[in-house]
Amino acid sequence: MFQIPRGTRDFTPEEMQKRRYLENSIKATFQIFGYKEVQTPTFETLDLFTAKSGEGVIEEIYSFKDKGGRDLALRPELTAPVIRFYVDKLQMEPKPLKLFYFGNCFRYDRPQKGRYREFMQAGCEILGTDTPEAYAELIAMAYTILKNVGLKDVKLNIGNLNILSSLFENLKISKDEQKQLIPLIDKLQFDDVFSLLQDCGVEKKVAEDFLEILQTSDIKKITKVIEKDESAKKELTYLEKILNFLEKSFNIKNYQIKMSIVRGLDYYKGTVFEIDAPSLGAEKQLCGGGAYELVPLFGGKETPTAGFAIGFDRTLLALETEKYDFPSTKIKVYVIPVNEETIDKSLEIVQNLRTQGVTTDIDLLRRGIGKSLKYASSINVEKAIIVGPKELEQNSVTIRDMKSGEQKTVKINDVENALD
Amino acid sequence: MFQIPRGTRDFTPEEMQKRRYLENSIKATFQIFGYKEVQTPTFETLDLFTAKSGEGVIEEIYSFKDKGGRDLALRPELTAPVIRFYVDKLQMEPKPLKLFYFGNCFRYDRPQKGRYREFMQAGCEILGTDTPEAYAELIAMAYTILKNVGLKDVKLNIGNLNILSSLFENLKISKDEQKQLIPLIDKLQFDDVFSLLQDCGVEKKVAEDFLEILQTSDIKKITKVIEKDESAKKELTYLEKILNFLEKSFNIKNYQIKMSIVRGLDYYKGTVFEIDAPSLGAEKQLCGGGAYELVPLFGGKETPTAGFAIGFDRTLLALETEKYDFPSTKIKVYVIPVNEETIDKSLEIVQNLRTQGVTTDIDLLRRGIGKSLKYASSINVEKAIIVGPKELEQNSVTIRDMKSGEQKTVKINDVENALD
Repeated sequence: MFQIPRGTRDFTPEEMQKRRYLENSIKATFQIFGYKEVQTPTFETLDLFTAKSGEGVIEEIYSFKDKGGRDLALRPELTAPVIRFYVDKLQMEPKPLKLFYFGNCFRYDRPQKGRYREFMQAGCEILGTDTPEAYAELIAMAYTILKNVGLKDVKLNIGNLNILSSLFENLKISKDEQKQLIPLIDKLQFDDVFSLLQDCGVEKKVAEDFLEILQTSDIKKITKVIEKDESAKKELTYLEKILNFLEKSFNIKNYQIKMSIVRGLDYYKGTVFEIDAPSLGAEKQLCGGGAYELVPLFGGKETPTAGFAIGFDRTLLALETEKYDFPSTKIKVYVIPVNEETIDKSLEIVQNLRTQGVTTDIDLLRRGIGKSLKYASSINVEKAIIVGPKELEQNSVTIRDMKSGEQKTVKINDVENALD
Repeated sequence: MFQIPRGTRDFTPEEMQKRRYLENSIKATFQIFGYKEVQTPTFETLDLFTAKSGEGVIEEIYSFKDKGGRDLALRPELTAPVIRFYVDKLQMEPKPLKLFYFGNCFRYDRPQKGRYREFMQAGCEILGTDTPEAYAELIAMAYTILKNVGLKDVKLNIGNLNILSSLFENLKISKDEQKQLIPLIDKLQFDDVFSLLQDCGVEKKVAEDFLEILQTSDIKKITKVIEKDESAKKELTYLEKILNFLEKSFNIKNYQIKMSIVRGLDYYKGTVFEIDAPSLGAEKQLCGGGAYELVPLFGGKETPTAGFAIGFDRTLLALETEKYDFPSTKIKVYVIPVNEETIDKSLEIVQNLRTQGVTTDIDLLRRGIGKSLKYASSINVEKAIIVGPKELEQNSVTIRDMKSGEQKTVKINDVENALD
């Protein structure tokens, strides 16, 4: 009769167990790295998001008016709200400020496989430092989060947008030409990049060098090509320090230099990184982040900022693709009152077990032993406790091991011990 | 520059720690009672809520249109979405189905003290049983949740709307007259109730008996007044069974019978209950629940349903009012590189501690020993680890106990043990 809104989801208990596992695992890693959780409202004023991402973003946003006629928007992402929060209330906190968050975000586009109109993001921001060790730690944390949730196969790529910008400048590529080049670089269509560079009047050798930088993971080759570009060289030295910390201090060696990371070029500045799950095919990016500037735009005092976002749903999908064995909280004990007269004693036994921290359920339908045992078996409980009137006269109950089928009679006072 | 939307909130790390503590505590009790978590979207089609609560609810709802022109609504409560979910996808699950959930809800009214436009609710539904033991367990769980979160002073009130309805019928009170009476009963304005009953032509003695039932917590007095009302008597017997289980099996004795619970009379049926925190004064209700009918209205096969909702913010407020000592996750160790040369080794020590599960942070601003120790002290860490070049030559670092000020030099390999 009533439909769920298009592009949104209900989550069953089985799905929620997986989602809570993932959330708690991500949270634990954030916390161990000294990050602290914050939360912002589900909606913000629309102008917050247009200020960050331009008017074009409106098309993809759920917006509505409040009673004061102000335009509100269901948040499409979480960085803008958190930076608004920072500018509003957290600027005086000691630096660096390390914040993490989880939140549902909303995207008003056509639903397609793996893309939903409501989806969850995890993310973080570090404010107030831009030392290489700070960014090394940030990247190491993103990587550690995805390893700690249980993913086996993740690929870390690190780039630097300032080097790319510097190269564009040296090659005298105009902003308009950059706009044509960037989508091609993003899609790794290097033949097309080469043609377009030549159309822009770039010499063949120079264009080849540029393509080499985009495609190599060998930092020495990059150094060689940019050796006369002071600005790019400075950035590269900075990048090398980050990589050095990653390798030596965090023991993360299997990353790739990837200068072709260009997504968000108008937003990120300097160091950028992505983490992919190759098992997911085309839609493989789980995490993206880097240094960016947003605080001054939102009216705050300029301060270095960096952060990353993790696609919660895609990370879950990657775990499922790797057939990760999610932990589940099962009902351990099922109590069966044999007849109406034993219900009160049964509830008392249930209550005692629960107080001891044992997840326990009880037949609340008076369906009798046969059906109750069948149900207990269907939900995979370890033990059933059968509370019959005869045994009760002796202050005893029957404990049945649901796997072996073995039964024993125990005193009520000994029930808890007899369950192990 | 950008404002948070009126009536909504940002939560600082300190507030989030409290909120997560409360959420996790509530969740743990739900789970130990065999309830399983579900989640539904943040918005639904508007007609879902008008079907449940009437057109009047629109005024208090944030609504907007999707691209297909359909009216959507930010959910004002969670029962309607969960029952939609049940009808849609869970009807074939084994009964009873015990579901719990957390979710942000939205209310489009004038913000006032303690009332926000976005607020969190915790709640649950049990579907497929209406035995007295099921409802006793439901009420016991609500009470246990609020005790387990750490509240000392909560008051449980239990009523029954069918008894009240039966009394209205016997007194020949019309529906219109009931509508006038109910708000007065809700506000405990019994003198006004008495006057109005007399205006309705109810005999003085009968009106007095009715008022007695509304005000007494003595079930024997109620029994005496309704002894000729077969329908009310049946309900009372049922209520007595619930109370019996509560007292004997769940050991919950400090409840009150309260027949004046009338809120939601058009929605709830039969057993109803409320739990208050007297410390909160006028706005003291933390939890409300009972049996209700919604499944057939949503197109599902008729099945008994009951549930309750807990006001998350108000429960938090009650804990704060009782000066509850919330647990907090602190940074335990702060690592201080004395100069640039010791940063990589410092990060390595940090990384090792984090891998061992020790929440550790490090100076990422190169601010030197003095300022770093001051910062470490301001965030209340237990130990600072000072990594200096001389000690490093001996593979050692200095560990400082931040409380006593005591310092000792230890080998890097022994750092973890030396922290205890």
